[in-house]
Amino acid sequence: MLGQMMTAPLLISSLIDHAARYHGGTSIVSVNTTGGIEHTTWAEVARNARRLGSALTKLGLEPQARCATIAWNNRRHLEIYFGTSGAGFVCHTINPRLFPEQLVYIINHAEDRVLFIDETFVPLVAAIRDQLPALDHIVIMGPRSEAAVEKLPGITFYDELIAGGDPDFDWPSFDENTASSLCYTSGTTGNPKGVLYSHRSTLLHSFAGNTADALAITARDVVLPVVPMFHVNAWGVPYCAAMVGAQMVMPGPGLDGESLVGLIDTYGVTLALGVPTIWLGLLGHAKAVGSSLTSLERTVVGGSACPPSMITQFREEYGVDTIHAWGMSEMSPLGSVNMPLAKHRDLPIDQQHRLRENQGRPPFGVELKIIDEDGADLPWDGEAQGDLLVRGHWVLDSYFHISDEGLLQDGWFATGDVATIDPDGYMTIKDRSKDIIKSGGEWISSVELENIAIAHPALQDAAVVGVAHAKWDERPILIAVPVEGQTPSEDELLAFFEGKIATWQVPDKVVFKDVLPRNATGKVLKRTLREEFGQVLTG
Amino acid sequence: MLGQMMTAPLLISSLIDHAARYHGGTSIVSVNTTGGIEHTTWAEVARNARRLGSALTKLGLEPQARCATIAWNNRRHLEIYFGTSGAGFVCHTINPRLFPEQLVYIINHAEDRVLFIDETFVPLVAAIRDQLPALDHIVIMGPRSEAAVEKLPGITFYDELIAGGDPDFDWPSFDENTASSLCYTSGTTGNPKGVLYSHRSTLLHSFAGNTADALAITARDVVLPVVPMFHVNAWGVPYCAAMVGAQMVMPGPGLDGESLVGLIDTYGVTLALGVPTIWLGLLGHAKAVGSSLTSLERTVVGGSACPPSMITQFREEYGVDTIHAWGMSEMSPLGSVNMPLAKHRDLPIDQQHRLRENQGRPPFGVELKIIDEDGADLPWDGEAQGDLLVRGHWVLDSYFHISDEGLLQDGWFATGDVATIDPDGYMTIKDRSKDIIKSGGEWISSVELENIAIAHPALQDAAVVGVAHAKWDERPILIAVPVEGQTPSEDELLAFFEGKIATWQVPDKVVFKDVLPRNATGKVLKRTLREEFGQVLTG
Repeated sequence: MLGQMMTAPLLISSLIDHAARYHGGTSIVSVNTTGGIEHTTWAEVARNARRLGSALTKLGLEPQARCATIAWNNRRHLEIYFGTSGAGFVCHTINPRLFPEQLVYIINHAEDRVLFIDETFVPLVAAIRDQLPALDHIVIMGPRSEAAVEKLPGITFYDELIAGGDPDFDWPSFDENTASSLCYTSGTTGNPKGVLYSHRSTLLHSFAGNTADALAITARDVVLPVVPMFHVNAWGVPYCAAMVGAQMVMPGPGLDGESLVGLIDTYGVTLALGVPTIWLGLLGHAKAVGSSLTSLERTVVGGSACPPSMITQFREEYGVDTIHAWGMSEMSPLGSVNMPLAKHRDLPIDQQHRLRENQGRPPFGVELKIIDEDGADLPWDGEAQGDLLVRGHWVLDSYFHISDEGLLQDGWFATGDVATIDPDGYMTIKDRSKDIIKSGGEWISSVELENIAIAHPALQDAAVVGVAHAKWDERPILIAVPVEGQTPSEDELLAFFEGKIATWQVPDKVVFKDVLPRNATGKVLKRTLREEFGQVLTG
Repeated sequence: MLGQMMTAPLLISSLIDHAARYHGGTSIVSVNTTGGIEHTTWAEVARNARRLGSALTKLGLEPQARCATIAWNNRRHLEIYFGTSGAGFVCHTINPRLFPEQLVYIINHAEDRVLFIDETFVPLVAAIRDQLPALDHIVIMGPRSEAAVEKLPGITFYDELIAGGDPDFDWPSFDENTASSLCYTSGTTGNPKGVLYSHRSTLLHSFAGNTADALAITARDVVLPVVPMFHVNAWGVPYCAAMVGAQMVMPGPGLDGESLVGLIDTYGVTLALGVPTIWLGLLGHAKAVGSSLTSLERTVVGGSACPPSMITQFREEYGVDTIHAWGMSEMSPLGSVNMPLAKHRDLPIDQQHRLRENQGRPPFGVELKIIDEDGADLPWDGEAQGDLLVRGHWVLDSYFHISDEGLLQDGWFATGDVATIDPDGYMTIKDRSKDIIKSGGEWISSVELENIAIAHPALQDAAVVGVAHAKWDERPILIAVPVEGQTPSEDELLAFFEGKIATWQVPDKVVFKDVLPRNATGKVLKRTLREEFGQVLTG
């Protein structure tokens, strides 16, 4: 027997409708690709989203046709998020930092029919245009530009496209499990693989994100998503913000410390979200210019482990609460959020702070577990390290157009991370399973060593990898990137680990580099480092 | 094309699983029917819920068999919520304050197979037992009691029933639209009608309730649901609390000021939820004993309009934020919540406070609109009054076992309330459509007049109804219940309206009573008052 309740589908169009209806006058600030500032509102974004949905429908695209974007965080990108998915097409966000051959692979694999690009990316796309036979429409996200037409003949312009669309376009209704958006993971090996989100998974993820124990976004927040919209839908923040009608500041291409401090102080940003490297720049500039980041109440940090020293600096120097979160493209991305429990209130303050450093607990809707090499569940004792598996309402079932029956293990997705879980369910990522260091039968977490190293005032970046060792099979070494003008010694850096970790875990060696190799999403390419330094201890 | 995400059903069993897994040690305090205190945890509640689900399954009940409860807010009631729905049965909560003939009607109409009751209600049920032919099992919510057996032969006992159940019982999986729970509305006319909630509607309602702009319950809260579990599932609070693992204090039968102040102060309650009359008792006792309700951070007030004077008293004397909410059984019940917008921060403080007095905005997932007598949409100008219509993911589609094709108006449910909506979407209930006063062609809100009257220090309760008038068709009169020992005059009470409302809206007369007539859920029976005083102005 079924309940007797209304059963409307959970659709992305209803998010933007809600924002327009209840928060129509709420401000969206957008930094253009050229650096100019545009002021718009949720009502205007919704109107343009409908215009776009109407215009794309008139183009005769088939249902769930892929409409790709190569763009920064700006208001047109926001309109495309809602306009494409709302009208029943798939919003396919692409990372502009990928190599051209990866771009070609992804666009062809996704069978993109439309490609929206910021004008900046005209040269990038012009260089690969002849390798994209299935792509019908390239749309520059702005007004007509004759310079762009010269470089990329046949293009159209966003502002002209939507001018022909109907601002009163009726959003179609369809099955909530329909595909809504697509994001390729930039693996460090093999071809990128697509994660095909649904309207339902996106809406449930938004609800969970907005719960008070997760991102807790409200109509009183001014949200700065520094995390790019081409990276797991900017962690779902555009959807979460629409759901509650938060103000948004879209930072455009300039993610340097100076630009971000300027945006925060000018527009009263209360919540900023991004990866740790971004905050290094922000904190550096805030200190340099003496900004106290007055309006900023909290930062959400994810993408890679947040160095504890950064959490401390945010808290002690700026009164900002750093919320450590963890997730991945395959999970929309919210996997866990570090928020305290009631019982933590009675702990000494430094212990409370230390508890905020791990990756936290999953919100309702997603589950985590750790298993050993035989697939058996490991205890939640904060000690046992194992492969981290996840499942839930916003976790992928299979990759886009890849039939890999073996992807899930008994209904769970293997993240490729190695983690511990403590008795309260708090999870700590120890390493990527392929990056963990196995020394004499014991596991050493490169992440823990990196967190210590990065707190050294003379270092601006650091990585730890395991390299071959005659006796222990593998030993950790530190690859250190000094702050410009500083020359810390190897001994000094190794001494910095003392008392912070067991002696046998201290790296065997330090090598210096000016910069670390990273992939398109900013992840350190440890494989490259292992290739370069693999024999420094045996050599 | 569908998305490629996992698609598990949204089931109530997953809420209690989450609470047990991540908040197993979190405390649930329960006041027994006899007044004793029991201490338990989410893990124990979950274990007993599984035991119960297993035991009910062994009884051979058909899927979605109705399992009724007549009980106060206590831990066994909480276990029954999760155990019945989790195992695929329907949790049917019944208001013990109903007249016996209404109880008989409801139990038979629902075709209840099992009835769980607190021992207090043995006499109540014994008196109607022979009129309940389809009821197979009556279960006393406690250990064996020979006294109860004598009064009600054939009964069984909860503690014995679950002792035979399996604590590792596997929750079944099924369609998320399956019926989960049932609550009859105690209309003031006609037979009560059932609202049949689904697992999906309950889960989506819980997500919305926990968003930071709604009830915002977290794992750090100690929640006191004073609103009874037989009244719209205690506003969904048990589900919301399980979703985030909040501590709970279940107050049992004693909802007087002394009991509530004791629970708040003893167990550090941070969030209490209930109807305005409850808070009158609480505030009175807190003042009398000098409690400052230190731990209490916020109250959620719904059920009927919260007098502004109460919001002020909570804020100014206790530092408690009162969140005004509105809803009804037909909407699970969350319809709107009064939380501020960013732009309100810049208003003078008294204006900010005044904005908190209306019923607020709907959270994402439910929509409101007002229409005129011809069904046309009315403007959101804060002035136009019209019939309030709602729709959304947790709004009923039809009443249980009543096929009334005409219930919805073009997909919207008519609430029977008259309201205004302002340009920001904030809704103010002006009256029940059948209670609004029409004086000389102008509408007068009895609710507004009541809110003013109740703030008079010599009154403990007040109602306003429209009565026949020779010239104006209808005029308001005030029915006043003085504080014991006080004898305010008619002139003094009427003078109290001056300057607070237009002169033509001031009541024509005051009549005094010792107590107001109320229905089983505490709503004033205005029809009775109109019958009694309908001719006082025409004589």
